[in-house]
Amino acid sequence: MDSLENILNRTSIRKYTDRQIADEDLHRILEAGMAGPSCVNSRDWSFLVVRDRETLNKMAEANGRPAQPLKSAATGILVCGDLNRSFQGAPDYWIIDCSIAVQNMILAAHALGIGSVWLGTWPQMDRVKKQRELFGLPEQIVPHSVIAFGYPAEEKERKGFYEEDRVHYEKW
Amino acid sequence: MDSLENILNRTSIRKYTDRQIADEDLHRILEAGMAGPSCVNSRDWSFLVVRDRETLNKMAEANGRPAQPLKSAATGILVCGDLNRSFQGAPDYWIIDCSIAVQNMILAAHALGIGSVWLGTWPQMDRVKKQRELFGLPEQIVPHSVIAFGYPAEEKERKGFYEEDRVHYEKW
Repeated sequence: MDSLENILNRTSIRKYTDRQIADEDLHRILEAGMAGPSCVNSRDWSFLVVRDRETLNKMAEANGRPAQPLKSAATGILVCGDLNRSFQGAPDYWIIDCSIAVQNMILAAHALGIGSVWLGTWPQMDRVKKQRELFGLPEQIVPHSVIAFGYPAEEKERKGFYEEDRVHYEKW
Repeated sequence: MDSLENILNRTSIRKYTDRQIADEDLHRILEAGMAGPSCVNSRDWSFLVVRDRETLNKMAEANGRPAQPLKSAATGILVCGDLNRSFQGAPDYWIIDCSIAVQNMILAAHALGIGSVWLGTWPQMDRVKKQRELFGLPEQIVPHSVIAFGYPAEEKERKGFYEEDRVHYEKW
């Protein structure tokens, strides 16, 4: 798929068919997640891939009401920061580095015909705590986001649009 | 350009030719920035586009040593969060929303043959303060990142690669 079209037309998909994502496509999505820039090239992220229906249901419960699409998703991925790898001068860059990884992953999925919805975890600390407990994560591993993936069972129009008043030239 | 190739091959470019970016391409880059998801569709960002050489030099000084490429960039964009628009239940999602915008912009640029480097501002609060002062930003507008854009005057190999040990299946 053309890159600009992909960026401009990708939108969140919350209803999925029963079709599972091929391992090869999952690999490309994860590769995309690891291909973005990160602060001082720290690559301070990890990915937890879940396909077990019972675990997906528990992930959904741990991530609040907007995470219900996970219950019918083919695959869910919990993206986490790894504070042991973060730039020690300003470790909070992990939040940006994980965001880059997720955006790359959902764009790669769309290019492969796979729908997705980005479910926010951080900075909602109740969700961070519940995901951490569900998977027994080590202390340095911080849940950032959950992504639900699956083949689309709904059609959606893009929401993105250009807003002239958000752009300033040379000065505020 | 093919979307997956674009994601996998894009890398930071820090040396630029003198060629300016056409307004049409700048518009597509900004459109890409506004096309990503945001928390509860809050679209809590703003973009400050700079081409004036003197202002680019000041932006570089405000953003620390890694921001020197701005001094030879054709165009710089300061991406800011807008806390008045953020999801009030968890306003720190602005950090993620701006990251999504920046990643889309640098991918769109690469697809158009334009190089870029992402220069971190937040969470380094000295940089946030200096950018704020430089542009006299309103209180609710928080500097997130600076991006330097220009036609590449260097060739770079991609740094991204797949690391098997960063992926966990079903459990940590």
